[in-house]
Amino acid sequence: MEKVRIGIVGLGQRGNGLLTTILSLEELAYVAAVCDVYADRREAAAERVEKQYGKRPAVYEDYTDLLADSSLDAVLITAGWEEHIKIAIESMRAGKITAMEVGGAYNIEECWELVRTYERTKTPIMMMENCCYDRFELLATAMARAGKFGEIVHCHGAYSHDLRDEILGGNVNRHYRLNNYMRRNCENYPTHELGPIAKILNINRGNRMLSLVSVASKGAGLKEFAKSDKNPDKSLVNAEFAQGDIVETIIKCAGGETISLKLDTTLPKYYSREFTVRGTKGLANQELNMVLLEGEQDFHEAFDTPVFVKKHLDNAKEYEKEFLHPIWKNITPEEMELGHGGMDYLMFREFFRTIGRGDPLPIDVYDAAAWMSISALTECSVARGGAPVDIPDFTDGAWVKRKPKDVLEF
Amino acid sequence: MEKVRIGIVGLGQRGNGLLTTILSLEELAYVAAVCDVYADRREAAAERVEKQYGKRPAVYEDYTDLLADSSLDAVLITAGWEEHIKIAIESMRAGKITAMEVGGAYNIEECWELVRTYERTKTPIMMMENCCYDRFELLATAMARAGKFGEIVHCHGAYSHDLRDEILGGNVNRHYRLNNYMRRNCENYPTHELGPIAKILNINRGNRMLSLVSVASKGAGLKEFAKSDKNPDKSLVNAEFAQGDIVETIIKCAGGETISLKLDTTLPKYYSREFTVRGTKGLANQELNMVLLEGEQDFHEAFDTPVFVKKHLDNAKEYEKEFLHPIWKNITPEEMELGHGGMDYLMFREFFRTIGRGDPLPIDVYDAAAWMSISALTECSVARGGAPVDIPDFTDGAWVKRKPKDVLEF
Repeated sequence: MEKVRIGIVGLGQRGNGLLTTILSLEELAYVAAVCDVYADRREAAAERVEKQYGKRPAVYEDYTDLLADSSLDAVLITAGWEEHIKIAIESMRAGKITAMEVGGAYNIEECWELVRTYERTKTPIMMMENCCYDRFELLATAMARAGKFGEIVHCHGAYSHDLRDEILGGNVNRHYRLNNYMRRNCENYPTHELGPIAKILNINRGNRMLSLVSVASKGAGLKEFAKSDKNPDKSLVNAEFAQGDIVETIIKCAGGETISLKLDTTLPKYYSREFTVRGTKGLANQELNMVLLEGEQDFHEAFDTPVFVKKHLDNAKEYEKEFLHPIWKNITPEEMELGHGGMDYLMFREFFRTIGRGDPLPIDVYDAAAWMSISALTECSVARGGAPVDIPDFTDGAWVKRKPKDVLEF
Repeated sequence: MEKVRIGIVGLGQRGNGLLTTILSLEELAYVAAVCDVYADRREAAAERVEKQYGKRPAVYEDYTDLLADSSLDAVLITAGWEEHIKIAIESMRAGKITAMEVGGAYNIEECWELVRTYERTKTPIMMMENCCYDRFELLATAMARAGKFGEIVHCHGAYSHDLRDEILGGNVNRHYRLNNYMRRNCENYPTHELGPIAKILNINRGNRMLSLVSVASKGAGLKEFAKSDKNPDKSLVNAEFAQGDIVETIIKCAGGETISLKLDTTLPKYYSREFTVRGTKGLANQELNMVLLEGEQDFHEAFDTPVFVKKHLDNAKEYEKEFLHPIWKNITPEEMELGHGGMDYLMFREFFRTIGRGDPLPIDVYDAAAWMSISALTECSVARGGAPVDIPDFTDGAWVKRKPKDVLEF
């Protein structure tokens, strides 16, 4: 099997992390080009590639030059949020297999353009939602497919990640988040929590998201942090931010299920995705690494919740023997170091293997458009005081007959 | 101080539990009358009272006869949900100090009538929201008042309580929930989670709830349970239920805070109220009995959420020495047996003591109307696909100048 020759657009923190991941997949992929608008970033990346391969990659300042490089099979887009869809569209037009990092859309029209470009070009594209490959999400998905939770009626997820330092360091670190937090008020980063949920609920494949409501709290976290000693950019001491601290969104699906999402990035909080599956026979809760199934645990044993939680915390391990996917059973400690505890490595290995086999990529353009659209749609709902907003059907009705497809076979 | 002569209307499960609580407060209260439409219930209660006091109480079938009993100072209403407000209105008109058990309203007009009746009669009334007196809620409230969480921007609560057996046993046990689950689809039981949150956020006292959105999942839990061996009432095997399994509500406040509520009563789940306070300096989480404060814990120590949770689970104990209210520090094991781990006992003791002092009751008619209105309002929002619904200002504008008042002094 020939190695996939890939070019990377955007070599900030995330691009560099994924460069490490891809360089480790030497049997499957070859980093043939790097691109960044900043000279220091592209040079540093080129040096890293040269050090590994003994050969310098092509180096581009302008991504359109990289897309014109006929030696490339594939392109990974890890630029700022605002660029993902635009570059992905051009990449598909250029015929490059397109790996698009996660983010949210700024309007619905760009989501449609992404879909229509795919439909015209048929260039394979995948949204690289690593959380779809994480250990607990895959465990819960396998258990859901085996019917362990019964009929699933509700899922919940969060992006709970204190980013105050990173956001306010945007000017200093040339990071894309700052302007978003100054101008927008929405669920600006929905896919880590929504992606695995959408897969479990067969969104775009027998089910679809119909409408959402979204309400934001006031934004006090960033403002207070900006005035504190911890603020890395003193030019922002009196800055104003449009973004609310907690944005909660409830999505209603055609199958009657609800999905609740919570963006929670500007208050003191430990990291959590709160990924939760609720069904008529049981539940899975990632924050607690807990699986509870009717007939297997006694749910009614106590009204003292912390005592109950302490007893069952981390009990998901008991279900791993039967339900954990082999890719997680066989992962090495070295592979787990290659980005976010292993999920980056596993996702990119699957991506390159799938390309090698010529199979369809498992997180497709319809998934990308639907998941990313949530940012633009919540922005409008928040502005309208939580008014329901319609979620487009990017499949043009094909969802009623498309078959479910998980990111891996179970 | 003279004992408060109280009559109890409604002697089902809850009424009987509170009869035990009140009989234990012999120095403060005297149960002078009992009332229930069912003869077996009122007779059993009368026997219990007689056994304790050596004197039989007045026994009434019709609550209007109890309200006409001139020997009574106060009335406790623990009838079915649909009766609370109606009986409370008549009780205030009859001049009886009125203790109203919790529940939700069926329309907004009855909430207004409750308020107007109080304003005309000035008869003291208190909604008996026991969760306002629970250990963790009071701890968190004391810490909030001390500024430990910084500026509070968001609170969350749930009524997560698997009631499938109890709901379907409604015909058998003459319980009030069944018809509600068959006919309505709303946040039918909001006050356990909302009450303590409303107090922390000074609702009706410098702040108010402005609007809400509410979305319900499909209802699959009860239907499946009804077909199972566990169903206590075989006449309901093919019953249909209007109520969704998970109803999520987001409330926006005048101060910019959001409150999210979750009703979760018809799927397998352990009991939890998920009471959570989020501020710019820290958080409190009841499910985990956890308090995290900036500068006191390292929030950034790990991306492995279950490991972090295990480390800090139950750490709220460390803050009890400084912040736990004396009523919880001095509670005896016997008092903790008197209903819901102690909160029923503490609440009723405070209720009778406050009456004895002639002081204002701390959960007043405006709180009752605002908190109970959520049921009727969510019913409309759910029916409209989550459309925002206005929350009335039952204080007629007085909230802008009313002073905060907690259920206890801190």
